[in-house]
Amino acid sequence: MATPRPGGRTARTKAQAFEAAAALLAERDAADIAMTDIAGRAGVAATSLYRRWGDVRSLLTEMAVERLMEDSPLPDTGSLEGDLRTWGRTVAQSLCSREGSAFFRILIATAPTEDADRVGRITALGPRIQQIYDLITRALERGEPAPGVMDVTDYLLAPIYVRALFGVPADQSVADRLVDRLLAMAKAGQLVSAPP
Amino acid sequence: MATPRPGGRTARTKAQAFEAAAALLAERDAADIAMTDIAGRAGVAATSLYRRWGDVRSLLTEMAVERLMEDSPLPDTGSLEGDLRTWGRTVAQSLCSREGSAFFRILIATAPTEDADRVGRITALGPRIQQIYDLITRALERGEPAPGVMDVTDYLLAPIYVRALFGVPADQSVADRLVDRLLAMAKAGQLVSAPP
Repeated sequence: MATPRPGGRTARTKAQAFEAAAALLAERDAADIAMTDIAGRAGVAATSLYRRWGDVRSLLTEMAVERLMEDSPLPDTGSLEGDLRTWGRTVAQSLCSREGSAFFRILIATAPTEDADRVGRITALGPRIQQIYDLITRALERGEPAPGVMDVTDYLLAPIYVRALFGVPADQSVADRLVDRLLAMAKAGQLVSAPP
Repeated sequence: MATPRPGGRTARTKAQAFEAAAALLAERDAADIAMTDIAGRAGVAATSLYRRWGDVRSLLTEMAVERLMEDSPLPDTGSLEGDLRTWGRTVAQSLCSREGSAFFRILIATAPTEDADRVGRITALGPRIQQIYDLITRALERGEPAPGVMDVTDYLLAPIYVRALFGVPADQSVADRLVDRLLAMAKAGQLVSAPP
């Protein structure tokens, strides 16, 4: 049994399940993890995990999203450049770690498809888009010229994601260069995407 | 039994297996496809599929890579701009189709990880990088200034891939704009990556 945590029974079960899932993920592929494995490791009843998450994929996705968002929260440095730089570095950094890369693979595996109504697929990539949206909205509220959500997705998030997929994760200098070029394009008026 | 194809028994078995795998993929998730399903649909012995591919994941990956490369072969228009534009459009277009998007998800699912020695993971994304390398090499041989392999990966391939992952596949106008900006950055000397 993991030690009890504040927040009542539900929060405790979730924390135990996520801890167990993350530990299992450090040992094997997500495809080789069953709900009963997580239940056994967490010391909770599999039925309560099924009741809450429906299937192991949804549990793994929610855990991966939560951990990745904890790894790279939305910064608030007071400037768009500062926010983009800090955010880009932390996103890149989290994908360089074995754990972060495993979490990322779960997100990718559950990314939207035709049957996008499935909760796991929706929750997988939405939070990152929300972070970008919030970061840009703040910049616009400060009166700063800002790129559009898809510009940040195309020129900062996408290269970091795809480099991770190609097995050559972006380090901080790569992340910085991506931010520099994104800001240079915005400054040069090369970006035509509308702000959010 | 599918109709025999030229190229002998091995080529015939492969063609039948790939056809069956593609057909099954149109019906269900890759995770729900077993080697025996493919063997049954193809009318070949599962043992011969196991002998050749080892596991169903490797078969699906090789099929997906082959189909995607057929969808968007390396163009040879005689100019870097023409090649990039044609290539970007066809890569984007293939990810807009239900079939292409399913093939892409298999590539992503088998993208390199720590255990990158596993063949399926190597073959998954390598061919695209090779296409980019060849495309740039040709441009350099013509004496054209060209971006580096990672520039094309970061600013053309990555946005197209990640938009597909986010469920908002890039259309041709998006692909064209990505090419325009990549060429503008190269022209403005904003790209610092070394050529291949």
